Amino acid sequence: MSKYTPVDLTFSEIIAASKRIEKRAFKTPLLRNDKLDQLVGGRVFIKPECLQQTGSFKFRGAFNRLQLIPEADRAKGVVACSSGNHAQGIAYSASLLGMPATIVMPQDAPKIKVERTRAFGADVVLYDRANEDRDAIAEELCSKTGATFVHPFNDTGVIVGQGTVGLEVWEQTRALGVTPDLLVSCTGGGGLTSGIALALETLLPECGVYTAEPEGFDDYARSLAADRILENERKAGSICDAVLTPAPGENGFSVMRRRAAGSAVVTDQQALEAVAFAISELKLVVEPGGAVALASLLSGKIDVRGKTAVIILSGGNIDPELIAKALV
Amino acid sequence: MSKYTPVDLTFSEIIAASKRIEKRAFKTPLLRNDKLDQLVGGRVFIKPECLQQTGSFKFRGAFNRLQLIPEADRAKGVVACSSGNHAQGIAYSASLLGMPATIVMPQDAPKIKVERTRAFGADVVLYDRANEDRDAIAEELCSKTGATFVHPFNDTGVIVGQGTVGLEVWEQTRALGVTPDLLVSCTGGGGLTSGIALALETLLPECGVYTAEPEGFDDYARSLAADRILENERKAGSICDAVLTPAPGENGFSVMRRRAAGSAVVTDQQALEAVAFAISELKLVVEPGGAVALASLLSGKIDVRGKTAVIILSGGNIDPELIAKALV
Repeated sequence: MSKYTPVDLTFSEIIAASKRIEKRAFKTPLLRNDKLDQLVGGRVFIKPECLQQTGSFKFRGAFNRLQLIPEADRAKGVVACSSGNHAQGIAYSASLLGMPATIVMPQDAPKIKVERTRAFGADVVLYDRANEDRDAIAEELCSKTGATFVHPFNDTGVIVGQGTVGLEVWEQTRALGVTPDLLVSCTGGGGLTSGIALALETLLPECGVYTAEPEGFDDYARSLAADRILENERKAGSICDAVLTPAPGENGFSVMRRRAAGSAVVTDQQALEAVAFAISELKLVVEPGGAVALASLLSGKIDVRGKTAVIILSGGNIDPELIAKALV
Repeated sequence: MSKYTPVDLTFSEIIAASKRIEKRAFKTPLLRNDKLDQLVGGRVFIKPECLQQTGSFKFRGAFNRLQLIPEADRAKGVVACSSGNHAQGIAYSASLLGMPATIVMPQDAPKIKVERTRAFGADVVLYDRANEDRDAIAEELCSKTGATFVHPFNDTGVIVGQGTVGLEVWEQTRALGVTPDLLVSCTGGGGLTSGIALALETLLPECGVYTAEPEGFDDYARSLAADRILENERKAGSICDAVLTPAPGENGFSVMRRRAAGSAVVTDQQALEAVAFAISELKLVVEPGGAVALASLLSGKIDVRGKTAVIILSGGNIDPELIAKALV
C-alpha cells in the first residue's frame, strides 16, 4: 500500500468507509428552501456538511483514513497539513482513536481553525503559505517519528471517506423518490468532489457532477478543460481558504476526468453573498469556501432552471469578523 | 366551533394536522453536537425549527389552521397579530392557499420580520406594544371584512399544528432507538410547548416537558407554580422578541397544567450567548427567543447530566445587527 493509495478507488471502498465512520460521523440531513428554489428556478436539495462533526465534511475522510492505519502504527501518531478543516477532522479523529496528531497549518488560516485544532489536543506547526512547502514540512515530521502522513485530498482512504456524502445523497434522494439531474460540490484539491463522483458513478450515473471553485483558484476547471493537471498561479489571496489548493490531486483527478459534467468559477464577492444568503435564508452558517457551490447557483454560473440539483455546503468554520462582513 | 377552538386538543388532531401540512412543511432533522454533549454532560438531540419554512415552527400551526377555514370563507382572508414569526407563517400559508392576509405587528418587531411578512404579500398594520391592544385591532379588522382571526398561540388549530414537532421528535428518536428523558421548548404563549406536550402525552408519556422563557417574561413558570394564569408585568424590553407574550394562552395552559415537568428562566445575556454558541458550534442561525431552550441547558438552569434531552430551536429570524452583537 503506497502512501497516497491505502485503498483502491472503488465503490465498495466507499461502502466500507461508510461502515467504518457511522459510529461517529453524522448523517447530515438533506434540506430544502423555497426561496432558493424560486430564485434559481429549479428544485435544489442542500447537503449541509457544515453540520458534520468538526464543522465540515473533512471528518469523514479523516476518521476513515485513520482507522486504516494498522493498530501497531497508531501510537506513532498522524501528521497532516491543512488550511484548517482537514486539520480539525484529523485532530478530532485522532483524539477519538487515542492517537497523537501534529498539524501543519498556514499562518493565514482563520484563527478559529487554529484554535479548534489545538482544542482537539493536536500540536500545530505554522508555515508561510506563499514561500514554504507544507508537504515537505510534514514529511520531515513523519520521518522523525514514524507517524503516518495523511494527505488532505490525494489520499484514497480520505477520498472514499468523503465519498460517503455521495452515498447519503443517493439514499436520501431515493427515499424521497427523487433523481437529481446534477450535483455541485465545492472543490479544492478534489477529495470531496471525486469521492462523491465515484459514489454516484455506481448509484446515480445519470447525475452530472460539477466542480465549483473561486476565481484565481480554478485549477480543476482548467485542468478538466486541458485534460491534464494544471497548477494555480497564486497560492493565497482569496477568502475561500478552505478550497485554496495548488492543483488537483492525481487520484481525485483520475476520477473527475471521466466523471465531471462541468465546472463553475465564482468570485470572492459571490461566495460572500452566498454566505449571507445561507445565514439569512437557509439559517445555516457556511464559510466562503463552503459556499462556492451555492454561489454558482445564485450567480447563475450553473443554470438549474427546470432541473433537480443537489449542492454541497462543505463547511461552516468561519471567523465572526467574516460573518459580520458578509452581512453588511 | 368557537373562535379559539376550531378543533379539540387531542392526539388524533395532531395526526390530522400532520397530514394536512406534510405537502409543504419540512420535516426538520434531529441533530447532534459532540461539544454540546460534553459541555452539559448529557446526550442532547437538537430539533432546529429555524430550518422550517419561513424560519420558524410557526408555519406548521399557521398552515394547518388556514386549511381548517371553510373554502367559502377563505376569500375573505385572514388576520393575525404577531411579533413576527407567526406573521410570516400566516403570510406564507395564506399565499400558498391564495388567501389575502393582514398582519398586526408591533412597531419594535425586528425589521427583517416586517420585511419578510410584506414579501409574502401580506398587508402589515403596525401598533405600539406598550400602549395598544393588538387583539382589539385585529378583531376590528375582522369585523370589517369577515376575515378569520387566527390567534398566534391560543387557537387550538394552531396548537395541534405545532404539535407535529412532537410527533416528529417521537418518530426520529424512535428510529434511533432512543427514549428521551426530557424535552425543553422555547415558550411564549405556549402554543408550541403545549402542542408538543400533547403529542408526547400519547407517544412518550415518560418524557418530561420543560418550558424555557426569558427573564421578565416568565409567565409560564409563575403560572405553572401558581396553577393559574398570571400575566407578565412588562409587555416589552427583551431581545427575545419571539417569546414576549402577555400571559399563557388558556388552551395551551390547560395542557401544560397536567403535563409540565418544570420551567427554566434565562437572562437575555444567556440567550445571546446561546445564539453565539449556535452560530459558532452548531452552525445554525437562531434568534434569541428561539435559543432560550438551548440557553437553559448551557447555563445549567436545566441539568441534563447523564440524561437524554431534546431541545427545540424554535426560530432563526434574527437581524444581522444582533448576530454581530452576539458574536462580539
